[in-house]
Amino acid sequence: MPTPIILDCDPGHDDAMAILLAVGDPRVELKAVTTSAGNQTVEKTALNARRMCSLAKAFDVPVAAGYLKPLTGRLLIGDDVHGETGLDGWDFPAPEVPLHSAHGVDLIHNLLADSPEPLTLVVTGPQTNIAGLLALHPQDKEKIKEIVCMGGATHRGNTLPYSEYNILVDPEAAHEVLSSGIPLTYCGLNVTHQAPVTRDVLQRITDVGTHISKASAALLEFRSSTYDQIWDLPDAPLHDPVAIARVLDASLVECVEAPVSIELHGEFTRGATVIDLYGVTGRTPNAQVATRLDTERFWDVFIAALTALG
Amino acid sequence: MPTPIILDCDPGHDDAMAILLAVGDPRVELKAVTTSAGNQTVEKTALNARRMCSLAKAFDVPVAAGYLKPLTGRLLIGDDVHGETGLDGWDFPAPEVPLHSAHGVDLIHNLLADSPEPLTLVVTGPQTNIAGLLALHPQDKEKIKEIVCMGGATHRGNTLPYSEYNILVDPEAAHEVLSSGIPLTYCGLNVTHQAPVTRDVLQRITDVGTHISKASAALLEFRSSTYDQIWDLPDAPLHDPVAIARVLDASLVECVEAPVSIELHGEFTRGATVIDLYGVTGRTPNAQVATRLDTERFWDVFIAALTALG
Amino acid sequence: MPTPIILDCDPGHDDAMAILLAVGDPRVELKAVTTSAGNQTVEKTALNARRMCSLAKAFDVPVAAGYLKPLTGRLLIGDDVHGETGLDGWDFPAPEVPLHSAHGVDLIHNLLADSPEPLTLVVTGPQTNIAGLLALHPQDKEKIKEIVCMGGATHRGNTLPYSEYNILVDPEAAHEVLSSGIPLTYCGLNVTHQAPVTRDVLQRITDVGTHISKASAALLEFRSSTYDQIWDLPDAPLHDPVAIARVLDASLVECVEAPVSIELHGEFTRGATVIDLYGVTGRTPNAQVATRLDTERFWDVFIAALTALG
Amino acid sequence: MPTPIILDCDPGHDDAMAILLAVGDPRVELKAVTTSAGNQTVEKTALNARRMCSLAKAFDVPVAAGYLKPLTGRLLIGDDVHGETGLDGWDFPAPEVPLHSAHGVDLIHNLLADSPEPLTLVVTGPQTNIAGLLALHPQDKEKIKEIVCMGGATHRGNTLPYSEYNILVDPEAAHEVLSSGIPLTYCGLNVTHQAPVTRDVLQRITDVGTHISKASAALLEFRSSTYDQIWDLPDAPLHDPVAIARVLDASLVECVEAPVSIELHGEFTRGATVIDLYGVTGRTPNAQVATRLDTERFWDVFIAALTALG
Repeated sequence: MPTPIILDCDPGHDDAMAILLAVGDPRVELKAVTTSAGNQTVEKTALNARRMCSLAKAFDVPVAAGYLKPLTGRLLIGDDVHGETGLDGWDFPAPEVPLHSAHGVDLIHNLLADSPEPLTLVVTGPQTNIAGLLALHPQDKEKIKEIVCMGGATHRGNTLPYSEYNILVDPEAAHEVLSSGIPLTYCGLNVTHQAPVTRDVLQRITDVGTHISKASAALLEFRSSTYDQIWDLPDAPLHDPVAIARVLDASLVECVEAPVSIELHGEFTRGATVIDLYGVTGRTPNAQVATRLDTERFWDVFIAALTALG
Repeated sequence: MPTPIILDCDPGHDDAMAILLAVGDPRVELKAVTTSAGNQTVEKTALNARRMCSLAKAFDVPVAAGYLKPLTGRLLIGDDVHGETGLDGWDFPAPEVPLHSAHGVDLIHNLLADSPEPLTLVVTGPQTNIAGLLALHPQDKEKIKEIVCMGGATHRGNTLPYSEYNILVDPEAAHEVLSSGIPLTYCGLNVTHQAPVTRDVLQRITDVGTHISKASAALLEFRSSTYDQIWDLPDAPLHDPVAIARVLDASLVECVEAPVSIELHGEFTRGATVIDLYGVTGRTPNAQVATRLDTERFWDVFIAALTALG
Repeated sequence: MPTPIILDCDPGHDDAMAILLAVGDPRVELKAVTTSAGNQTVEKTALNARRMCSLAKAFDVPVAAGYLKPLTGRLLIGDDVHGETGLDGWDFPAPEVPLHSAHGVDLIHNLLADSPEPLTLVVTGPQTNIAGLLALHPQDKEKIKEIVCMGGATHRGNTLPYSEYNILVDPEAAHEVLSSGIPLTYCGLNVTHQAPVTRDVLQRITDVGTHISKASAALLEFRSSTYDQIWDLPDAPLHDPVAIARVLDASLVECVEAPVSIELHGEFTRGATVIDLYGVTGRTPNAQVATRLDTERFWDVFIAALTALG
Repeated sequence: MPTPIILDCDPGHDDAMAILLAVGDPRVELKAVTTSAGNQTVEKTALNARRMCSLAKAFDVPVAAGYLKPLTGRLLIGDDVHGETGLDGWDFPAPEVPLHSAHGVDLIHNLLADSPEPLTLVVTGPQTNIAGLLALHPQDKEKIKEIVCMGGATHRGNTLPYSEYNILVDPEAAHEVLSSGIPLTYCGLNVTHQAPVTRDVLQRITDVGTHISKASAALLEFRSSTYDQIWDLPDAPLHDPVAIARVLDASLVECVEAPVSIELHGEFTRGATVIDLYGVTGRTPNAQVATRLDTERFWDVFIAALTALG
């Protein structure tokens, strides 16, 4: 029985790869894709989600757009990494998958209501939609089995020295999700940096030899070029699929239970995920924190999913 | 032509009086009442709004419940002032006005969409619903003529030394509303304290001699007793109707244009409305700030509305 | 027996008047004047203290300069109010009172050590010197009977909407003094604004008919002109002498015991004195907070001191 | 010509080793040791500095005690690591080196005044004394050639997830030092963790075969046992000598120029050194930040110094 998931994301190149992995791997069933304002505006991330679902021939997966901005403050897009479209590097045709008519948050709400079993949410962008859902419909948390997110870091961030992009865009949303009591797993930069897209990985993707693999390689090449420019990281780590991997097979991503706090008030540290790995703060653990990726098996799983997509 | 308004409130005794004023005065047309989580839970504030609309025989005014909690953080109810029901002091029958089936935010959104002209929002509780509306449907701000709120203070607050209750409950929401660019008027404690419910005022209300006036007097007596206990203020100021008064007749409430900032980050000052009356900060004015109430005419207007309700 | 005091100040026009009051009134014995960096640089405030002691013929009062800047952050001088010299409006001759060779903090430390009885400190500028003293010589607090300061406000500030100048210049210092456990009285703007220098007051000062009264009137005229420009307050309140008045005769300045907290961390409220007059915060009272000045008697005392100076 | 240095420290086991290195290596001349309140109270850190100078036969090095507490806030001692004496693990005789009669800050001030050339300050504890010196005598910065400190981290902290002990104890002091414009080098945990005291290192220390090496080994054994308990780090990194090493031979410690900010205001991140290694913040570089230790040569230098002490 595949695990039913809703993917809330902001594609974004690594979100795009997360969509492919979620469609291609038989161990999850992608019930819907909802998009947040993040790497690009929510119009663009919704369009990109439709493009990726179309590319993956996931024609039945509903794609809906969520909140247009963070709960508080202005949207900080990530066009330095992802380009003007949010998914630069491949020339997409008009997507066959339509934009679902409901608001993303309503779609999630309705899917939770209709599901006989609790659903898993995988969140690979800012957590605005989930926090909004919980503020609009607090009782929905009973229908959420767990949330697995890509966000934060146990060590350094990327957008600020201690702040990772997804959390920095909407720290209050992350705080709300963390405070909800829903089981939560954090796949942060410390673990996603264990999935660098090396030349060897790119070659393996290319070697799959399909239209999808060709598009994937082109997208990842674009992203590696921007990572190289900004952080001297030509082997750009593939963040978001790690969260899917955790759901596919928990043993791929080793976690420890730890207290996680979101810094909302610092002058230089807003959006930091303050993770107490050594119990020095006396706070109660409130999340699973990913610490180690089985890199080899991760790439095997990713390549297998790409291959399965045909 | 009366001014069409939507009243977003958290009754609460003074919100209840604001409903009566809005129904009774011919210069405004109450299109809907939506309720926020504030003085009490949103279930109770919605019930109380239905009670007051029923009492005022405003059977056609839709009443809907909004967000169940602030955008971030926990709800701080005001039961010390308003009691366990949020409207202690009168024994209400079951309300004839039903609960509207839509979410409060959806009701506002739909009314704005359907209205040929921009609408005025009067907000006398925490500003969660409005901030949520603007995050879900940013383009709705084009259909909002102005927002007149009761909240904040130019001097001291009430719930914390520098923080007024409505703002303190959801400072991020207040910040979002303030940042939206929608014309905004702040009726703070500094002006609402110019409307103390004195013994004389209570007598005038009682003298109206109707069922509604009797209920009003009883509700205000209850509230004065709690104000007396907490702040030594037996003549409890009647905050929320001042915001309605500003819409009815702008000359009742004198305002100055000033920069208003919401403190989100202080250790002791979270939720303070920092209002620069003397231009010492160099910030740009972003709101009308009420400074003076024409107290005598205000009570005349209020008594007239009560009388008109029959 | 006069009360022995050390006056730590940053003259500044109202500090200058505090010096005259402290020299002229027989109920206090001015043991020393130390100066802080505040209204002007510490070099200028020390020069001004020497000028005022010379004017008052207090040739034996040692005057020493303290810290050159706040414990943290940059110095914010008040030249908009006090002019380039810090004491504009009178043409002073070279002061006869010399600059004491010791650092102001060392002078206070030595005086405390030499005194058979605990001394009262009156602090009418930023509290840097006192905080520095307590950090260098924590045990000195046993020799301090009490600290009476001019600073803060129960309502609005002056330099920022909620921040008074003396506290805003060095909030950490104020926090340290407040945390020291030394009995502390706050004479804030709310009480000093009860001492406006009206035309009538100026006339009474002029009518004293001495060289000192003439200089005082000229200095106060200058200050009123800057207050008029900045805050539309031509009858500029005479802040600092109120703290001396409290020591002279406690009945001149009515106080309540209340919890006072210094906001160190707000975005818009740094330096606010958050004073819980109604016990809403649950914090323990830690200071006497002045609430009412006996204005009439205050001016009588002040005029009597001027007169006594001859 | 050896580089003349003043070591301001809070021994503490690794400070103790820094004293030995500074005395034993001919490339620095230890002009004085001043102590701060940190790992233990300033009385204990001064006693420990006298013990270490006595052990090292540095009988002419003046040792003075500085501030008794941080500029703001309470002292947080590190007795969990360093024990009740601050230097547990060896039974010291009464020290022959006396306590200098001057306050530590005055001693630094006087040494700077008397020195024909600017001096280097090495600061391996909280930076209270240096910030105090700069507040008392701002012009002294002209006589400080550079400051090399052990403190902070580019990645994780130790006392809080993002806050290193020396900085967390007095963040305002660190901010003041950083703002002074004095050339500043940060040797943070990221580089000091490249100097773990392994079994092999301990053996090399023991093999020196002197009384001093025996004491050193015992002290380091004690410290490793506490590190093992708290952070699962039996090979406890030897933080403070790294700062001395940087002065001895800059090539031992590789640095990059980067913007460093001290977080003063976070809820969970106070005391974090926010170091922008990738220029993502747009701030101007204001410090040298150590990134790489030449571990092998570092231990050679340390062992050589121990050996030279005889």
